[in-house]
Amino acid sequence: MTHLNLLPQTDWDAAPRTTTRSSFADLEINDDAARTPTSGSGRDVVEFDFPGVRVGTAEYADGPTGVTVVEFDGGARTAIDDRGGAVGITGRYGYNSAIALTGGSVQGLAAASGVTDAIMAEQGRKTGFADLVAVSGACIYDFAVRDNAIVPDNALGRAAHANARAGQVPIGRVGAGVAASCGKMSPSSTEWAGQGAAFVQVGDLKVLAIVVVTAGGVVLDRDGRVLRGNLQSDGTRRHPITDSLLAFDGEGQDAAPAFQRGNTTISTVVTNAKLNDIDLRQLATQVHSSMHRAIQPFHTALDGDTLFLATTDEVELPSYDPRQTLSPSVASVGAIASEVMWNAIIESAR
Amino acid sequence: MTHLNLLPQTDWDAAPRTTTRSSFADLEINDDAARTPTSGSGRDVVEFDFPGVRVGTAEYADGPTGVTVVEFDGGARTAIDDRGGAVGITGRYGYNSAIALTGGSVQGLAAASGVTDAIMAEQGRKTGFADLVAVSGACIYDFAVRDNAIVPDNALGRAAHANARAGQVPIGRVGAGVAASCGKMSPSSTEWAGQGAAFVQVGDLKVLAIVVVTAGGVVLDRDGRVLRGNLQSDGTRRHPITDSLLAFDGEGQDAAPAFQRGNTTISTVVTNAKLNDIDLRQLATQVHSSMHRAIQPFHTALDGDTLFLATTDEVELPSYDPRQTLSPSVASVGAIASEVMWNAIIESAR
Amino acid sequence: MTHLNLLPQTDWDAAPRTTTRSSFADLEINDDAARTPTSGSGRDVVEFDFPGVRVGTAEYADGPTGVTVVEFDGGARTAIDDRGGAVGITGRYGYNSAIALTGGSVQGLAAASGVTDAIMAEQGRKTGFADLVAVSGACIYDFAVRDNAIVPDNALGRAAHANARAGQVPIGRVGAGVAASCGKMSPSSTEWAGQGAAFVQVGDLKVLAIVVVTAGGVVLDRDGRVLRGNLQSDGTRRHPITDSLLAFDGEGQDAAPAFQRGNTTISTVVTNAKLNDIDLRQLATQVHSSMHRAIQPFHTALDGDTLFLATTDEVELPSYDPRQTLSPSVASVGAIASEVMWNAIIESAR
Amino acid sequence: MTHLNLLPQTDWDAAPRTTTRSSFADLEINDDAARTPTSGSGRDVVEFDFPGVRVGTAEYADGPTGVTVVEFDGGARTAIDDRGGAVGITGRYGYNSAIALTGGSVQGLAAASGVTDAIMAEQGRKTGFADLVAVSGACIYDFAVRDNAIVPDNALGRAAHANARAGQVPIGRVGAGVAASCGKMSPSSTEWAGQGAAFVQVGDLKVLAIVVVTAGGVVLDRDGRVLRGNLQSDGTRRHPITDSLLAFDGEGQDAAPAFQRGNTTISTVVTNAKLNDIDLRQLATQVHSSMHRAIQPFHTALDGDTLFLATTDEVELPSYDPRQTLSPSVASVGAIASEVMWNAIIESAR
Repeated sequence: MTHLNLLPQTDWDAAPRTTTRSSFADLEINDDAARTPTSGSGRDVVEFDFPGVRVGTAEYADGPTGVTVVEFDGGARTAIDDRGGAVGITGRYGYNSAIALTGGSVQGLAAASGVTDAIMAEQGRKTGFADLVAVSGACIYDFAVRDNAIVPDNALGRAAHANARAGQVPIGRVGAGVAASCGKMSPSSTEWAGQGAAFVQVGDLKVLAIVVVTAGGVVLDRDGRVLRGNLQSDGTRRHPITDSLLAFDGEGQDAAPAFQRGNTTISTVVTNAKLNDIDLRQLATQVHSSMHRAIQPFHTALDGDTLFLATTDEVELPSYDPRQTLSPSVASVGAIASEVMWNAIIESAR
Repeated sequence: MTHLNLLPQTDWDAAPRTTTRSSFADLEINDDAARTPTSGSGRDVVEFDFPGVRVGTAEYADGPTGVTVVEFDGGARTAIDDRGGAVGITGRYGYNSAIALTGGSVQGLAAASGVTDAIMAEQGRKTGFADLVAVSGACIYDFAVRDNAIVPDNALGRAAHANARAGQVPIGRVGAGVAASCGKMSPSSTEWAGQGAAFVQVGDLKVLAIVVVTAGGVVLDRDGRVLRGNLQSDGTRRHPITDSLLAFDGEGQDAAPAFQRGNTTISTVVTNAKLNDIDLRQLATQVHSSMHRAIQPFHTALDGDTLFLATTDEVELPSYDPRQTLSPSVASVGAIASEVMWNAIIESAR
Repeated sequence: MTHLNLLPQTDWDAAPRTTTRSSFADLEINDDAARTPTSGSGRDVVEFDFPGVRVGTAEYADGPTGVTVVEFDGGARTAIDDRGGAVGITGRYGYNSAIALTGGSVQGLAAASGVTDAIMAEQGRKTGFADLVAVSGACIYDFAVRDNAIVPDNALGRAAHANARAGQVPIGRVGAGVAASCGKMSPSSTEWAGQGAAFVQVGDLKVLAIVVVTAGGVVLDRDGRVLRGNLQSDGTRRHPITDSLLAFDGEGQDAAPAFQRGNTTISTVVTNAKLNDIDLRQLATQVHSSMHRAIQPFHTALDGDTLFLATTDEVELPSYDPRQTLSPSVASVGAIASEVMWNAIIESAR
Repeated sequence: MTHLNLLPQTDWDAAPRTTTRSSFADLEINDDAARTPTSGSGRDVVEFDFPGVRVGTAEYADGPTGVTVVEFDGGARTAIDDRGGAVGITGRYGYNSAIALTGGSVQGLAAASGVTDAIMAEQGRKTGFADLVAVSGACIYDFAVRDNAIVPDNALGRAAHANARAGQVPIGRVGAGVAASCGKMSPSSTEWAGQGAAFVQVGDLKVLAIVVVTAGGVVLDRDGRVLRGNLQSDGTRRHPITDSLLAFDGEGQDAAPAFQRGNTTISTVVTNAKLNDIDLRQLATQVHSSMHRAIQPFHTALDGDTLFLATTDEVELPSYDPRQTLSPSVASVGAIASEVMWNAIIESAR
């Protein structure tokens, strides 16, 4: 049987990864200096075998903040499941040439237009309706952990496109995840998270998951253990349900700081399964919900959680019953993609 | 601090609970005989302290199939999160006098009209627009485990209303959950599930969760262990990701039966927190996604998962920052309700 | 070129059709007496040539109130556009054996279960998931114009099914529209509306529209003239924008009664065009919006407007450009269906 | 009574306004030369009295293409109704500092980020979550009528912000509407449309509507007459239902060119009515549907129709019945806003 390694990793790095922020106004912005994009470098790469799919990253080191772009040769049908209470999204097309994940919150969405501009210029400067280059994007609020207002912009999006290549995704504090953090029950409990990825091929089915975790919630392992976030003063991490209970317990209210605002987990799943519109939409729903296993709490009013599910529509799914109107195997694609995504989330904070 | 007992139960009953079905046509239907409703009896009750909220059950023993109704004095604002791929729902109102959960699949929705009729008759036979009695409902397909076509109907809905009372919810194989099952990777791997419930009060905040689990997926404990469903011939239970991987692995396809179709988890959460429309909607989303931790896979194309989140709008939430436009404490209400729901799911299959 | 007669009718009956209501409580309900369904009879019929599609009506004369059912041999893929602020809907399936339109407000949805029960019984009493008979339905509040609380129920739904036949739809005060009214700026301005229908075949494309108009708004002709509703004491009808302006004009407030509550326009469009899921969904949106031309105001907070768009998926649409990812001809199907629907609305109140 | 002048204008300019396009590739793009924003100038202005609301336009004359920004002091709660089949949107926030309407299709959304950047820089370079400047935007495809690929960009968005002022909106071929066209049954039938606006105050209620019409459909007057679009060789304009019928009529197919793709009507309504979340959402739905009266066909698979409905939440609506759970007067706000919008659409093409 095909191997899908279900993390937890035995080599988890349990050391605290605390974050800081001291200033809130009169911050440096992009216009104050010339900025030079770099490609960034995470702690590792995840390899994938998916012809026609390329991934690129770009960063402004003096943020730091960054962009990650996932590109599809010829474009890919896309379902978008934006289900948080505070979503920041651009494009929202049902067919995309690329998906841009960015830091810099609402301003960072500008990077998506850079990707569009770069691809348009390469593709013969055509403006027929069928020639349009659709790039959807979503942003994270990554200001919680840095003392400047530098943001991804059009130029950084172009740089991410220029850096895009097949076969590997950098993971860790890189690209859109270079200033990502999680477990934000209070500023002092926040830890660095980042960008994660995972890939599996099962038979002919391919699934690639890329995620940028700057969740209010913590990251959990498959046994319910908190891996990252909500760090306590004694170096342990606790499940945020304790903080939530304290928030409503009369005596504990002083001890219970509010959840920090400005959280989001943005992600892209790419598969090669042929799916009709309804199945594609349902698959996005299934995988997005499944992420609640790995991030808790999730989909809160304070998160802008958004998942893009793209398919290259190449591989016919096995069919068990020609009379069926629903597709049993789509549920299995979703189950597999959900585990791949859990691995990706763990990699984001490993 | 307030106590919220996070299950797993140490007294879990690990014995197999296999189901059977042999016939598929020429089945007995309601019209073939007179039917007498009973109130049903589960294996236990869950107690709750929530003035104005009543719960009732009714069953046709010769199905068996049943109805569970959750009623609100004076009605309750309701957000509905119907996110499965095969939903069966009726009413779908934003303000409800009651929520009806029923067996009998699409036919069982008739029970909701019985609840409406009964309350209308009691409330003075008035037809002003403000006098209307809105009852929303959702159904499960419970035919997978029985050899007849008997379904909840108007009379059974009326009976459930007549049986409604404050303070306790029966759990186990009772009410809408009397023929509920889970872990349906194949007919032989299916086990009985049922109706679950849980309640907590934290400070002034009350949360009651009631769930009927007839999921395709298995029920999981907080440590990732499969508690119920996908029973193997050796008496163990396995995580369905194995079945999904087999489905795409060329050599294993014979060994990998498809997911059975006709699955659904329907649930009602009642709180007394004052919430604006957007927060109420987001709370339903947060809790519904969280259930993916306890049922896997969830929200597939083959499930009709639907959650009703009702509030009696009685208790002002603590506010941490008067300038906030989002509500940190709503995320905490959602985190608490998510754990209460996980407990309820475990009780459904315990 | 194919003929599509764009109404206005030159033979419009301009005589007032006033309604009355005097009592609001202690009303007669279904349980008070035995009720015998009749098929009802409108002022005329609309003929259609659409093999596999049948329409039936049933009424309780002592309401009066009724049901209209549209049935599809073998079922039909369905998009549902429920866009009013006060929708009452049941089923909401993406594939339906029948659509039930009913009077009796929230209680009337019970009629849909009668249709389901009747078809299930005829189809061999089978309960396999693929054997389920999905019937979606929507209701109108028709109590504004009658002094009793008699409602469509399961038996009336069964009767409508039994009455269903190919080739013609009764129109006028019949079926679900037997107590439908419109133009409800005040009780005295309200006029009877009813059920309308229209059919066209253009080349191989067939479109059948059936509508039950109990709108708050008035019915308008293609030249902007008010045909029915908002009747003034001098026998003329005025556009409701005047009433809306008066409502906000300080001096006029006494003279400006509120819109009556409890309004809805429910409709079914059946086509034979092959459409993918996204085009089917968009077609429902296009046609539903178009009805704002014929009913004004429309889609208000006080209306529960719902449209079912079903296709038998038989006729391939002409394609102009094989590279296209959007379908120009779907817009034309929508444009044609919109005019057919306008005709149907005019017939409802003619 | 307050005066709301319901157009048609008697001074309609019936002369043809034909458009042209000859080249489709190797077009000039923004990077090919330095671009200097101008503010543009339409054929007239519409005045409005709405403290706290400002409107600005900016154009690149060598497109021409442009941007229109509507800004709110302190931000405004916003409902977004994006209902076309081909939407291009950015932000999609529920609370916005500004709404940006742009030309340049998917690339033009970059202008919204320019507005954000400019306001952020002015507001103290702060990055607290509550300090974020949310700007939502939508784009039109305006390449159908020009032979270059010049698009609105970040700099043009900044220019539109800098040009924003209270009290008047330019109308005609200006701002985002400088290259807008309508009635696109074929290239030769296309006519110039543009940007329209209208304002009314009724009692204390204020409503401002701004619209950019580049619809596939034609613009219609209140008597059903085609005012602009689908121009025939004899100088007359015909209703597009004729073209749609021809498309399905076997013999006429050669004579019936497809609808052109790449159409959209984007609009912003600003009111000062206090509205809860659900009423705000419903109001957007009501007004957006109403626009189908003025543009036909509308909301097709080929249009990306999007409406932003923003409120400054200043004026309590009159209440007629303290027991009401729905709001009769919201329907009247919608009815008024719908007529204001129709006027605005007529102004766009007058």
